[in-house]
Amino acid sequence: MATWIGEEEIEDLAIGAAILGTGGGGDPYLGKLMVQKSIRKNGPIKLIDPSEVPDEELVIPTAMMGAPTIMIEKIPNGDEALKSMQLLENHFGKKAFATMPIECGGLNSTIPFVVASEAGIPIVDGDGMGRAFPELQMETFNIYGVKGTPMGLYNERGDHCVLDTLDNDMLEYISRGIAVRMGGVAHIADYAMTGSEVKRTAIPNTISLCIQLGKAVRTAQEQKTDPIKAIQQVTKESIYGEAIVLFKGKIIDVERRSTDGFVRGKTVIEGFDEFDGKHLHVDFQNENLIAKIGSQPVAMVPDLISFLDLETGSPITTEGLKYGFRVLCLGIPTPPIMRSEAALEVWGPRYFGYEYDYQRLEDIHKRKESVR
Amino acid sequence: MATWIGEEEIEDLAIGAAILGTGGGGDPYLGKLMVQKSIRKNGPIKLIDPSEVPDEELVIPTAMMGAPTIMIEKIPNGDEALKSMQLLENHFGKKAFATMPIECGGLNSTIPFVVASEAGIPIVDGDGMGRAFPELQMETFNIYGVKGTPMGLYNERGDHCVLDTLDNDMLEYISRGIAVRMGGVAHIADYAMTGSEVKRTAIPNTISLCIQLGKAVRTAQEQKTDPIKAIQQVTKESIYGEAIVLFKGKIIDVERRSTDGFVRGKTVIEGFDEFDGKHLHVDFQNENLIAKIGSQPVAMVPDLISFLDLETGSPITTEGLKYGFRVLCLGIPTPPIMRSEAALEVWGPRYFGYEYDYQRLEDIHKRKESVR
Repeated sequence: MATWIGEEEIEDLAIGAAILGTGGGGDPYLGKLMVQKSIRKNGPIKLIDPSEVPDEELVIPTAMMGAPTIMIEKIPNGDEALKSMQLLENHFGKKAFATMPIECGGLNSTIPFVVASEAGIPIVDGDGMGRAFPELQMETFNIYGVKGTPMGLYNERGDHCVLDTLDNDMLEYISRGIAVRMGGVAHIADYAMTGSEVKRTAIPNTISLCIQLGKAVRTAQEQKTDPIKAIQQVTKESIYGEAIVLFKGKIIDVERRSTDGFVRGKTVIEGFDEFDGKHLHVDFQNENLIAKIGSQPVAMVPDLISFLDLETGSPITTEGLKYGFRVLCLGIPTPPIMRSEAALEVWGPRYFGYEYDYQRLEDIHKRKESVR
Repeated sequence: MATWIGEEEIEDLAIGAAILGTGGGGDPYLGKLMVQKSIRKNGPIKLIDPSEVPDEELVIPTAMMGAPTIMIEKIPNGDEALKSMQLLENHFGKKAFATMPIECGGLNSTIPFVVASEAGIPIVDGDGMGRAFPELQMETFNIYGVKGTPMGLYNERGDHCVLDTLDNDMLEYISRGIAVRMGGVAHIADYAMTGSEVKRTAIPNTISLCIQLGKAVRTAQEQKTDPIKAIQQVTKESIYGEAIVLFKGKIIDVERRSTDGFVRGKTVIEGFDEFDGKHLHVDFQNENLIAKIGSQPVAMVPDLISFLDLETGSPITTEGLKYGFRVLCLGIPTPPIMRSEAALEVWGPRYFGYEYDYQRLEDIHKRKESVR
């Protein structure tokens, strides 16, 4: 059942994608403006279920890669991602039937809408992370056997290239180097695949979920009800799992640096209400990776860790974290497809250098409940 | 008048290319073995004058880029540069009429011979530097208006890409990043051009000159005559200018590090004979850049600075410099096409961060003579 996405749905998408983006994926505000401009020009955009893509048709996902801190300084012209997709269309000698996101997150949930609108093609309702992750091999597409290359890269100047690597780890490594030298960010098209591969490897209906989440928050804001409860209700009924409040407090420290094409850093929150006297430490590499109260992890990748404005429930990306902000830190269990052994090798806490075995968010929380 | 190049000419080429390579361009021994293997398999290779390339035909230069220190650790399979050329042939939908070197230097004078042999095409007698230089915008092709991209890059694993940049400075910057992430070296095809562009922008007959230089040195070695005098005689009659002995002595220090895709460093020579009590300091970035006695420059880019074994006259590349070697340092004036104002902006001493205006080698030497 295709859905037509207009300006209002994009408002909601931007909010929801920033929640599932776990701090990364770039500024949702910028992405929203870009899509809304396209919709005003070309009309609503067709969102299709993965099951609606014919098995043999070509789907080319589109995105941006680089440090979000640089993304918000270099506003896209709007056609770079389209051009990166066209690099692959020329390479294959075949037009894309549809585009789709590689992740959920501010810019990367919205850029494929701009591409779909400008190319006059639909966008597939799903992605390859069900959240945002910092590296390009961190895709269900990769874990379940799709080749990430050929990959098209394009920058705002018009420098571009088509990259082909033997494996998807090298895809990440070389393309990251290119993105850095292209000026810190690159617009990309990768993991081109057939309709049947989409059905087999994508996390389905994550765009709809983002829109639903955003709508729930916005409605709660308008009706002065609790946006957190609204998020919990939506996640509970999804393939994810009910969101858990990890912490409430005031940001007392943020450290961030752009290195090797990523923004890395950490933030410290001083608790209040039931968290009075405690401190939450969250590390990030573009996205939030691990949250600890004292030395005890309370959430870790691949489960989602998102910051929301304590009053409004609006999500805050890692580059938006600032001293003094009063925030709520939310954990959301990741879908089962993200928790397989093969998947945890690619994006579990050990991959990011932490000495922890992965513990499911809901298990950590259950133990805490039982201790109380 | 085409010439057929056999194994013996390649022996000479390797020596001569290492002299004009001014320390860079990779190990001449490795390159020689690769070509000789191809010649044994496919027969002699056709060397043609630039004037023999029809105006509309396509010439695709081939080479290796990266730190020579890594090049000698990662011996090529032999077909990577051919594959990088084929990336561009596919891109243009047109076969190369011929290949050619982008510079004179150990590996980069020989790799195009391997490509020519394997592809069954001739090699054009000329190049774009008349020496070796560390960066890819340092080409007469660039200075006189040829676009360096599309560029094909290939590594020994089979990772590859086609890069297109708006200008040749960005070509160098992005491709260097790719070469680093491809493992420190990449096999490349760039500055694809027409026959008429070859005639207009290449430094002609530098391959023949390398062979002549190598033959002169080898003959002198066999006949126990002075190889330096032989080099001086050959250079005097070329578009370069007579080679000048800058220094004789023993290497007492070498410092080298591989950073950002280059090998950078310096060496210090303690003089003997007429240089007794003096020290020569030579800085290099892949190639020798500037030679000073005390604080006085005695040669600087783009003039050629080459080290030779003091006894045999055999050239020594920057990665071959070792403590205790007894060496002769030779300066060779660069051809006039390399000394235009536009050219000096790209490869004069100031580009490399030195606070000197370019002084011609023969002028420095004339002043020294008149002071004596």
